Amino acid sequence: MTFTMKKVGILMGSKNDLNVVKPALVTLKKFGVPFEIHVLSAHRTPAASAKFAMDARENGFGAIIGAAGKAAHLAGVLAAHTTLPVIALPVKSSTLDGLDALLAMVQMPAGIPVATVAIDGAENAALLAIQILSVSDQSLAEKLAAFKQEMNDKILAADQELQDEIKGI
Amino acid sequence: MTFTMKKVGILMGSKNDLNVVKPALVTLKKFGVPFEIHVLSAHRTPAASAKFAMDARENGFGAIIGAAGKAAHLAGVLAAHTTLPVIALPVKSSTLDGLDALLAMVQMPAGIPVATVAIDGAENAALLAIQILSVSDQSLAEKLAAFKQEMNDKILAADQELQDEIKGI
Amino acid sequence: MTFTMKKVGILMGSKNDLNVVKPALVTLKKFGVPFEIHVLSAHRTPAASAKFAMDARENGFGAIIGAAGKAAHLAGVLAAHTTLPVIALPVKSSTLDGLDALLAMVQMPAGIPVATVAIDGAENAALLAIQILSVSDQSLAEKLAAFKQEMNDKILAADQELQDEIKGI
Amino acid sequence: MTFTMKKVGILMGSKNDLNVVKPALVTLKKFGVPFEIHVLSAHRTPAASAKFAMDARENGFGAIIGAAGKAAHLAGVLAAHTTLPVIALPVKSSTLDGLDALLAMVQMPAGIPVATVAIDGAENAALLAIQILSVSDQSLAEKLAAFKQEMNDKILAADQELQDEIKGI
Amino acid sequence: MTFTMKKVGILMGSKNDLNVVKPALVTLKKFGVPFEIHVLSAHRTPAASAKFAMDARENGFGAIIGAAGKAAHLAGVLAAHTTLPVIALPVKSSTLDGLDALLAMVQMPAGIPVATVAIDGAENAALLAIQILSVSDQSLAEKLAAFKQEMNDKILAADQELQDEIKGI
Amino acid sequence: MTFTMKKVGILMGSKNDLNVVKPALVTLKKFGVPFEIHVLSAHRTPAASAKFAMDARENGFGAIIGAAGKAAHLAGVLAAHTTLPVIALPVKSSTLDGLDALLAMVQMPAGIPVATVAIDGAENAALLAIQILSVSDQSLAEKLAAFKQEMNDKILAADQELQDEIKGI
Amino acid sequence: MTFTMKKVGILMGSKNDLNVVKPALVTLKKFGVPFEIHVLSAHRTPAASAKFAMDARENGFGAIIGAAGKAAHLAGVLAAHTTLPVIALPVKSSTLDGLDALLAMVQMPAGIPVATVAIDGAENAALLAIQILSVSDQSLAEKLAAFKQEMNDKILAADQELQDEIKGI
Amino acid sequence: MTFTMKKVGILMGSKNDLNVVKPALVTLKKFGVPFEIHVLSAHRTPAASAKFAMDARENGFGAIIGAAGKAAHLAGVLAAHTTLPVIALPVKSSTLDGLDALLAMVQMPAGIPVATVAIDGAENAALLAIQILSVSDQSLAEKLAAFKQEMNDKILAADQELQDEIKGI
Repeated sequence: MTFTMKKVGILMGSKNDLNVVKPALVTLKKFGVPFEIHVLSAHRTPAASAKFAMDARENGFGAIIGAAGKAAHLAGVLAAHTTLPVIALPVKSSTLDGLDALLAMVQMPAGIPVATVAIDGAENAALLAIQILSVSDQSLAEKLAAFKQEMNDKILAADQELQDEIKGI
Repeated sequence: MTFTMKKVGILMGSKNDLNVVKPALVTLKKFGVPFEIHVLSAHRTPAASAKFAMDARENGFGAIIGAAGKAAHLAGVLAAHTTLPVIALPVKSSTLDGLDALLAMVQMPAGIPVATVAIDGAENAALLAIQILSVSDQSLAEKLAAFKQEMNDKILAADQELQDEIKGI
Repeated sequence: MTFTMKKVGILMGSKNDLNVVKPALVTLKKFGVPFEIHVLSAHRTPAASAKFAMDARENGFGAIIGAAGKAAHLAGVLAAHTTLPVIALPVKSSTLDGLDALLAMVQMPAGIPVATVAIDGAENAALLAIQILSVSDQSLAEKLAAFKQEMNDKILAADQELQDEIKGI
Repeated sequence: MTFTMKKVGILMGSKNDLNVVKPALVTLKKFGVPFEIHVLSAHRTPAASAKFAMDARENGFGAIIGAAGKAAHLAGVLAAHTTLPVIALPVKSSTLDGLDALLAMVQMPAGIPVATVAIDGAENAALLAIQILSVSDQSLAEKLAAFKQEMNDKILAADQELQDEIKGI
Repeated sequence: MTFTMKKVGILMGSKNDLNVVKPALVTLKKFGVPFEIHVLSAHRTPAASAKFAMDARENGFGAIIGAAGKAAHLAGVLAAHTTLPVIALPVKSSTLDGLDALLAMVQMPAGIPVATVAIDGAENAALLAIQILSVSDQSLAEKLAAFKQEMNDKILAADQELQDEIKGI
Repeated sequence: MTFTMKKVGILMGSKNDLNVVKPALVTLKKFGVPFEIHVLSAHRTPAASAKFAMDARENGFGAIIGAAGKAAHLAGVLAAHTTLPVIALPVKSSTLDGLDALLAMVQMPAGIPVATVAIDGAENAALLAIQILSVSDQSLAEKLAAFKQEMNDKILAADQELQDEIKGI
Repeated sequence: MTFTMKKVGILMGSKNDLNVVKPALVTLKKFGVPFEIHVLSAHRTPAASAKFAMDARENGFGAIIGAAGKAAHLAGVLAAHTTLPVIALPVKSSTLDGLDALLAMVQMPAGIPVATVAIDGAENAALLAIQILSVSDQSLAEKLAAFKQEMNDKILAADQELQDEIKGI
Repeated sequence: MTFTMKKVGILMGSKNDLNVVKPALVTLKKFGVPFEIHVLSAHRTPAASAKFAMDARENGFGAIIGAAGKAAHLAGVLAAHTTLPVIALPVKSSTLDGLDALLAMVQMPAGIPVATVAIDGAENAALLAIQILSVSDQSLAEKLAAFKQEMNDKILAADQELQDEIKGI
C-alpha cells in the first residue's frame, strides 16, 4: 500500500480574507503538506459549503480550516457536515476587534466541536492541521519537532542580539 | 381570492429553549396569528433546517423566528436559504450571559440580514413578526395599535397604584 | 385598486452618519424600492421624530430604518410611536467600537421590538426592509431570490479566480 | 419671597424597578427633600414621559432621576425634553449584568447630557440630586457635610470593631 | 444682595487631556459661565486635589468637572472632599477605548456619587454643569432652552440640505 | 503489525475541575477510545506537566486535552512541550464567566497552537480528540458518522414530541 | 542590631469585604508574618487612608494590600501617599463580576504603580506580600520554597486519588 | 559584609516587545538599579524560561518583570519556578486591545501570584520593582520619595503654564 498524505482544506468566507489567511498557505508549503484553498461562504454559498464538507474525507482531506469574520458561521457549518476535525480561524473585521468572530466560532454547542485558534492566527491554524496529520505521520512529527527547535534557537539568538542592542540605551 | 394570513415559523436549536421561547407562542396566539414551532438545529439537523427555510415562503410562512444559544448559527443558516425576513432570538446559556449568541446572530455579513431582538426577548420576536405581517394586513395593524394603547394604560395604572404604595415608605 | 409599493423610511441621528448609511440607499435603488431619508434625532428633534413615526403607516411607509451611534435611542423612540417594523442600524463612533449603539438598540424591553442588524450594516438594513416588503410582494421576492443567486455565483467566480492567484504563492 | 425647596422627580420604566429604586426614596426622606415618584416608560408611555419632562421645571422640580434597565432610554428621553439636570440610574436586568443599561445611558450624544451613576446605585442618584439642590441651598449643603462626617465616623467605628473580631482568626 | 454666578471648576489629570477637555471651555464661554481650569492629579498631587475640592464651595464653585483616563480616580477623589456635584469625564487612552476610565468613574460606591458623562464627552460635561447652575438661575435656564431650540433647528436645516444632496445618489 | 489505538490524555489544573471534565470521559468511553486522566498544574507542578507533554507521543497519546480556569496556562504549557495536537478546554470559575480562561487559551502566539473549544465544553473536547484520531482510523470515522446521525434523529424525534406538547399552550 | 520583620498592612474599603479578605489573614498567619488590618475607605475616610499610607514605612510596614470593589480607588489612593509597594485586590460586587474593580485598579497611570492580583484573590495578595518581604529575608524565602513544594506534592497526591476515583466512571 | 543591590530581571516574550518595554529600562537606569534583560518565551523557550526563574534568587535578582502579549503566560510560568515577586506587564497586540494579555496574567490561580500592572505600563513595572527593592533599601526609598515630589512639582508647574495657555481660548 502506498501512503498518500492527507490534504488540508482551507475555506474562507470572502476573498478579502486572503491576506489574513496567507500565512497558513506559507506554513503548509514549508511543511510539504498538500492543500486546497477555496472561497466558500456559509451564507452565500451554503450548498457548496455543505458539499465540500460532506465529501472532504472521501476526497482525501485530513483537516479543514474555516476562516471567517463577524458572525462567523463557516467553521460550524462545515463541522455540521463532516466528521473530520474543523479548525476555526476567526478574522478581525472593522468593528469589535474580532471578538464577534471568536465567540461565534468557539462557543459551538455540544456535539459539533470546532478547534478554534487565535483571532487572525492563520499560521497557528496551519500548524494545528499539521499536528493533526502528524498523529499518524512520523515524518511530519519530526518536522514539527525540528520547527520547535528552530523557534527555540531563534529566540535564543534574538536574546544574544538584544544584549548588544541595549548597550546604547 | 380569499385571503389567508401568513404563518410564523418558530425554530429553536434545542427543546430546552422552549421555556425561553414560550412567550412568543403566547403572543402569537393572543394576536390570532397562525404559527408552527419546530426543534431544528443548524448543526445537528442542517439538511432539515435548510429544507424548512427553502420551502417556507411556498408553505405560507411570512416570517421565521430562529432561537438559539452559544455560537447561535440557526437564524443565519435559515436566512441563507430563504428570502423571507428571519428574526434572530439569542438565548442566554450557562456562560457569557448571552453575549456569544447575540454577537453570533447580529453581526451577519453583508447580503444575508437577520433581524435580531434582545437576549431572551421572545415576546418581542413574536411582536416583530406580527409587525412584519401587519405591513399588508390592516387588521393586525389595528390589533398592534390596541396593544400599544393597552401597554400605555397599564403603565399609567401602575403609576396610580404606586402612589398608594409609597405612602408607607 | 392599483397597487403602490410601500416606501422605506431611513432616519439618521446626524448628517455625519450619511457615509455609513449610503449603502442602504444604493441597495433600495437597485431593488427599485421607493424611500425617504431624513436627519432626525431622538434627542435633538424628539417631536419631529415622534411625528414621523406616528404618521409613517398612513404616509405609505412599510418599514423604517433608524441609524444612530453611541447611546442610540433613535430606533427605540421611533418604535415607541409606530406599529410598523423598525430596523435598528447601530453606527460605530469614536469609542467602544459600536458596542454601545448595539446594546442600546438590541436590548429593547418587552412590548416594543426593534429589528437590529450588524454594526455599520447599512446594506443589510435595506435588504431586511426589502424582505419585509417582499412578504406581500411577489416581484420583490423574485428580485431577492435573483440577488441571492447572484451572490452565490460571485463567490463561486471568486473561487475560480483564487485558484489562479494562489499559483504564485 | 418665601423659599420653597425644589422637588426631585423619580421616574422608573417599570414598577418592577421599585425594589432597586427604593434607597433613593429613603435617602431623599432622610434629607427632607420633597419628591415625586412615577412609573413612566420612554417606550410604552412616550407622551406622558415627554410631558413630565417638559413641565418639570415649571412644576417645581430641580432634578429628575430616570431609572431603567436594558436598552435604557428613559433618562435620555427625559433629557431631550427638559433643561433640568437628569440623573440616569442604570438597572441590572436578567442578562448582561447592567452593562447594556449603563452604555445606553452614559454614552449620550453631544448636546443632551445625562448624569449617570453606578448600576443599581439608587442611593447615589438621590445624593447627587441633593448635591445639585445644595448648590443654592446652604442648609442642604450642611446636611451633606454632616452625612459625610457620619460616613467617616461609621468607617472608623467599623475599624474599631474589626480589631476585636479578628482576634479570633 | 447682588447675585454672583457660581463658577465651574475643571480639573484634569494631565495636561495632555486639554485637547479632549477644550469643548467644555468653549461651551462654558458660550453660556457666559465663569470657570477655572487646573491640571491636578489624584495620584501625583493628591494634597492639592483634596484641597481644591475642600475649598471649592467656599471659593464660589457650583460644580466641578474631573477629567481623567485609565484608572480614573480624579472625580472620585474630588467627590470624597466636597459636597458639591462632581461631574466625571472619562478620557479614552491608548488601550481599552475608555472603558477602564468609564468603569473607574461611574461605579462609585454608595455615599459618594459622581455624575458621569460619555467617554470624551467634554461638551456634555459643561452642559451638565450649566444645567446644575440653572436650577437656581433663570437666565441660564433660558439660555439652555434657546440652545435646545437651536440644536433642533440645525437638525431640521441639515435635513433640508440632505434632500438636495441625495438627489445625485 | 498490530494496530493499537492512540490514547487521549486529559489533564486538569485542579481536581475541582473533574465535574466539568466528566462528560469528556463519558464520551471517550462511549467511543471506546482509551484515555488517561491526570491532575497536573502548569503552575503548581510545572515539571510534571512538562514531562507528561514531552513523553506523550512516545507514550502512545494521539491528543491531549488541557482543562483549566482563570489565567488558564495549562494547554499552552503542554503545547510548548509536545508536537501533538493539544485541545484547550476553558473552565468557568467564580468571576468573569470563563472569559479569562477562554482568552488565556485561545489567543496563543504564533508557533504554538492549541485547539480551543467552548467554555465548559468537555464533551466537544472529547469529540474533537476522537475526530483527530479518526483521521487515520476508519472505524472511529464510522462511529462519528453514526453519532452524527443519532444526534440528527434525536432532534427530529424531539420535534415530534414537541408537536404534542404545545397543543396545550 | 536585632532584626524585626516588616509588617503587612491590609486595608479594605468596607467591613463587608472581610469575607473575601480572610484568606489573606490566614496565609500571613501561616507564614508568621505580622500584619495589621483596617477598614479604611478612599472615599469615606480619605484623610485616614492618606495618613495610614504616609506613615506606613515609618510604622514598620513592608507592603500594603488594598482591597476594594466597584470603582476601586483604595489601592491607588494609598499608592499616591507612600513609596512602599501597594498590592491591589479587586473585589467582585453585585454587578459586572469584578471587572470594574479590576480595571479601576490595574490601569494606574504612569508614576504610581500598584501590584494587582486576581479578582477576589486574597490568598495571592498575601503571598505576593510575603514574596516582597522575602527579597531581603532568607527565612521567608525558605518558607515560600517549602510552600511551593507542598503545593506540588498535593497536586501529585490528588492525581493519585483521582486514579482510584475514576475507576467507577 | 558589603551590601550589593539586587538586580531586576526583565524578560519579554518577543524582541518586538522591546519598544513597549524600553521605559522600564530607562526608569531602572535613572534610579541606578542594575538589571538584565532577555528575550525568553514561555512557549518557545520553556526550558530557558524555567531555568532563568529557578536560578534568579541565587543569581542576585530581587524582582522579575515578565512582559508578553496575547495569551500571555510568561509571568505565570516564571512565577511557577521562583519565589521571588514576579511583575506581569501585559502588552497590547493587534487585536482585543491588550485585554487578552491582561486577563491571562492577572487572573492567576491561588498559590502562584503575579503582580500585574497596566497594559503597556512598562514605567510602572520598573517603579514597582524599585519599590520592592526599597523595602530593605533606604536609599532607594529616598529616591522614590524624591521622584514622587518631582512628579507633584511637575503637575503644579504644568498647571501654571496652563493658566497662560488658556487665556487665548
